[in-house]
Amino acid sequence: MRPLPLSRIRITDTFWSRWQRIVVESSLPAQLEQLESTRRLANFRIASGKEQGEHVGIYFNDSDVYKWLEACAYGLAVHSNEKLKSQVDTVIETVIAAQEPSGYLDTFFQIKHPDLKFKNLVAMHEMYCMGHMIEAGVALFECLGDRRMLDASIRVADHLLSIFGEGKRRGYCGHEEIELALVKLANTTGQERYRELARFMVEERGKRPTVFEQELDDPVALSLSPWSKNMMTKHGEYSGEYCQDHAPVREHTQVVGHAVRGMYLYTAVADLIDGKGDVDMETALERMWENLTQRRMYITGGIGPSASNEGFTADYDLPNLTAYAETCAACGLIFWGQKMLEMTGNGEYGDVLERALYNGAISGISLDGTRYFYDNPLESRGTHARVPWFHCACCPPNIARLIGNLASFVASEADADFYIHQYSGFEAQTTLNGVPVTIRAESQFPWNGTYRLSIEPERPVQFALRFRLPDWSEDISAEVPGAEEEAEYDSGYAVFDRVWKPGDTLVIDLGIEPRWIESNVAVRDDLGRIALTRGPLVYCAESVDAAFDPQLFVADPNADVTEQWEPDLEGMISVTVSGVKEIEQPDEPLYVPFGTAEMQEVQAKFIPYYAWANRGASAMAVWVRY
Amino acid sequence: MRPLPLSRIRITDTFWSRWQRIVVESSLPAQLEQLESTRRLANFRIASGKEQGEHVGIYFNDSDVYKWLEACAYGLAVHSNEKLKSQVDTVIETVIAAQEPSGYLDTFFQIKHPDLKFKNLVAMHEMYCMGHMIEAGVALFECLGDRRMLDASIRVADHLLSIFGEGKRRGYCGHEEIELALVKLANTTGQERYRELARFMVEERGKRPTVFEQELDDPVALSLSPWSKNMMTKHGEYSGEYCQDHAPVREHTQVVGHAVRGMYLYTAVADLIDGKGDVDMETALERMWENLTQRRMYITGGIGPSASNEGFTADYDLPNLTAYAETCAACGLIFWGQKMLEMTGNGEYGDVLERALYNGAISGISLDGTRYFYDNPLESRGTHARVPWFHCACCPPNIARLIGNLASFVASEADADFYIHQYSGFEAQTTLNGVPVTIRAESQFPWNGTYRLSIEPERPVQFALRFRLPDWSEDISAEVPGAEEEAEYDSGYAVFDRVWKPGDTLVIDLGIEPRWIESNVAVRDDLGRIALTRGPLVYCAESVDAAFDPQLFVADPNADVTEQWEPDLEGMISVTVSGVKEIEQPDEPLYVPFGTAEMQEVQAKFIPYYAWANRGASAMAVWVRY
Repeated sequence: MRPLPLSRIRITDTFWSRWQRIVVESSLPAQLEQLESTRRLANFRIASGKEQGEHVGIYFNDSDVYKWLEACAYGLAVHSNEKLKSQVDTVIETVIAAQEPSGYLDTFFQIKHPDLKFKNLVAMHEMYCMGHMIEAGVALFECLGDRRMLDASIRVADHLLSIFGEGKRRGYCGHEEIELALVKLANTTGQERYRELARFMVEERGKRPTVFEQELDDPVALSLSPWSKNMMTKHGEYSGEYCQDHAPVREHTQVVGHAVRGMYLYTAVADLIDGKGDVDMETALERMWENLTQRRMYITGGIGPSASNEGFTADYDLPNLTAYAETCAACGLIFWGQKMLEMTGNGEYGDVLERALYNGAISGISLDGTRYFYDNPLESRGTHARVPWFHCACCPPNIARLIGNLASFVASEADADFYIHQYSGFEAQTTLNGVPVTIRAESQFPWNGTYRLSIEPERPVQFALRFRLPDWSEDISAEVPGAEEEAEYDSGYAVFDRVWKPGDTLVIDLGIEPRWIESNVAVRDDLGRIALTRGPLVYCAESVDAAFDPQLFVADPNADVTEQWEPDLEGMISVTVSGVKEIEQPDEPLYVPFGTAEMQEVQAKFIPYYAWANRGASAMAVWVRY
Repeated sequence: MRPLPLSRIRITDTFWSRWQRIVVESSLPAQLEQLESTRRLANFRIASGKEQGEHVGIYFNDSDVYKWLEACAYGLAVHSNEKLKSQVDTVIETVIAAQEPSGYLDTFFQIKHPDLKFKNLVAMHEMYCMGHMIEAGVALFECLGDRRMLDASIRVADHLLSIFGEGKRRGYCGHEEIELALVKLANTTGQERYRELARFMVEERGKRPTVFEQELDDPVALSLSPWSKNMMTKHGEYSGEYCQDHAPVREHTQVVGHAVRGMYLYTAVADLIDGKGDVDMETALERMWENLTQRRMYITGGIGPSASNEGFTADYDLPNLTAYAETCAACGLIFWGQKMLEMTGNGEYGDVLERALYNGAISGISLDGTRYFYDNPLESRGTHARVPWFHCACCPPNIARLIGNLASFVASEADADFYIHQYSGFEAQTTLNGVPVTIRAESQFPWNGTYRLSIEPERPVQFALRFRLPDWSEDISAEVPGAEEEAEYDSGYAVFDRVWKPGDTLVIDLGIEPRWIESNVAVRDDLGRIALTRGPLVYCAESVDAAFDPQLFVADPNADVTEQWEPDLEGMISVTVSGVKEIEQPDEPLYVPFGTAEMQEVQAKFIPYYAWANRGASAMAVWVRY
């Protein structure tokens, strides 16, 4: 199956249309101001000789500019905005002007260390930045037909090809990204040499002695960055887990190290092997996916519990209060999940993708699109707040490009199949068995489970309409009005394979109901606790609603709950739950005989997790006692 | 009241006698091997010119040698051991030989930076090391009558007096210790100038601009240690909390920063003001003690929850799995508590001291005396194990000197009062109202609450026998056989003020029973959980007994428990509890509908917390669900 380009599918439902509009109208303009005020754009002007000055900021700051451009490409594909378009134009010219004749582009090295390019691959992120440049180039071309950045990206990629690859220098980047970008570039340009370079980098990674291991003995490399501890075990041996450089990729058994890096690597690998019959590598990916989603993923789709390595720890280690669960890691999980879905056609990938999308990813951005979480804990004592920008600002443009590109995750096409992965409303143009077909989905997802498809082929045509059966639904039904037929089931999808005529409709009821969930008891941090969900949404209780700390709440999961549509928080359904709570007695001693605490009956309103921390400081809990 | 010197009181009960013997026979010899093999002793030989070489190890490693000497002084006061005595002799000579004619002694500076002495007080621990030297000098003199180290200590202290003090240089040490040592030296030598220097350092601390604040602007100071971040807030302002340098001591309102440092500071302050009528400072200490023990102390007496600053965070922030609760901090709490007890005569200090002593302090050492915890969590997933030594090895000799000096904490004397603070067995010689009295306590504490005192005055004499009423006891009784009198109550002590005759006895039943305890609900980490105690001991469940992870256990606090004497773990009473546990289902998905997990009835054996992790890797929990 293939994703539909944004020129042929657009989101139409209230929920995601609002997000997409907010990103274009609020997030991207504010991010541009940050790119300017933090001198990320100035670095390009300095590198091109148009401005005097020193490089300012982290050595990988170029990437934020590229991710912003990519997000703008998606946004402008849907929302016309002349001012933003003109700003994009300027930024493109600013970027391209900094590119060296060789194709090399990295403002940190061009300004500060022109003689040390590619001397330290483990830490310095050069190819990471170049990868994001390529992604921007592809997106600007695919969405807006603008070739300028694509051509510059080709020059960057050809420059890499002149240095790295089979029979040339062995090398890959400490922060994976270039691999998936090169595959995208190959897909867009049809040039297999980019895919081959990506394959080379994937296959060389982790082979002992590894490239990074060797750099740790190189004083020139170390002079650029004494940072290396994350590559070593506490016993002083080389580990490489932090960068997924611990073993060749096809031997990886668990997701380890820095979560975003891992996700970007496996996204590239899935795209690389799709349709190529590399069973070993596909098995490795499935093994890793299973480990990730059945051992190391929060109920929100957040991944990477630990701040110390921005990544993974041990199976079932999922602390809630200290959960790192970086916004970028949830984005990365979605990127990888979509590639797995496209490769396998298995709806389970869509389930995980939906979980991350509606919870752990969009929790990373405020409802007004102007503030961001880097880490997304599942419990807070009221001290966690979104901020407008970060010194290391990877997350803001990442969530912007995810939301902008959302339509890519909603549906896919094949020659005689149309896949619906996600239940947002959309309008798509496709061609199935040679016949142009317009498909429209009306949806009030995630609030309402009624989903109505209108199929408009130019003339009657047979094709299979496949829609994912969400793992959270216990009672799903679908009907083609006027027809008697039953759906078939295939890999987590319901399939109506029939002749579709103009005016046909398909009406699905997804059966969205509040449900209490528990964790596998191996998750020690969730023992004795339950979480409320409704459809794809994970809910949480916030003290701003309850007037008490939700950690004090003990839910009665057998009591009725009350759902209510509320205009607050940009419109949402709240769920009110009955239970009890301890009465706080601050004057009591720290330790008292059992039976001292008194309980009172209370109601607690739960709201969708993604919407928390939008009303000032507030304690929050996803997992509550019962 | 005054502590009794070790020459007049010794421990006689099984529990503590065993610990004291183990320390002399196993811990101290093994620690000496570490002092030698890690070149801590070599640094002294190099500084004195007896050996060639470079300084090896951390700049404050001298202090470990001094603490070992102090522990040996206590140990040899009770247990004669010719080999250890001869080793102590050699170490004393090795140390003294390194002292400069000026009195200065710090091998790191003498060897590596002879021109930079006292240039960086915030980080370099010079006076911290000197303080431990003085404590060793005092202990060797008080316990063994050996003046050599005391004389060297006087030279060190006089050297400090030649530099620092009123009208001289303003200065104090980043790691408090010198203050309490100078007060000890004043008490032993009768020289008030040492107390005055301690007072100067206490009073100058935290006055803006502080000494440390000024050092952060000094390139010479910074050249010695770029370490300074702990002095700054995340907004880049000077904080000083880490070193209790944030405000003048008498304005401190909460315990903050590095826990051991705080405890050593307040120990010094209490000793300094005892009997001096400094009401403001006494109020400050009481305020801090209240904050510490009613907001920031684990049930084990462990303090300082956070590894990042080895210290305090916020009120009621007491996570169990990640509890730092450094062994040295529990020792420091005991040191401070004893000074508060001696100053106020209030038994509440003895309650806290007992809690720390029987739980969070001795958990720091293995039952065989050869391995140590640095941090003492209240929950473990089976990965926490004691080790023979640390790179930063403050804890091993600290717990050794605490155990060796235990008799100091058990009883105190005054002119006409004899105080019993702790219920270990002992034999003491004192003089009360001018009459020599021998007092013996027979005890099987903490296992058995029957405590029998024999009072043997040379002739009948009136004095008040005061014994602390433990906060954990709900049913305590005491009887002077043959007499009808009732005890009076005063500040947490029961008082029998009467004429005591040779052969009189007092029999106390402390009422030791298993009790379930809950935390103030403000401790979010303990919500829905209870802890088992028995007398002063906090209990825990270990997977090695239960064959299941105790985090899975849900106790029935209303069911009967079974106590059993067991020879394991050097002899202890176990308590077996009824309850249920979740059945582990590894093949089940990560997230499942509520009601999926199944429970089974189980019994769980609890053992004293101090004894955990003595039988290999084992998961452990103090706070269990109910």
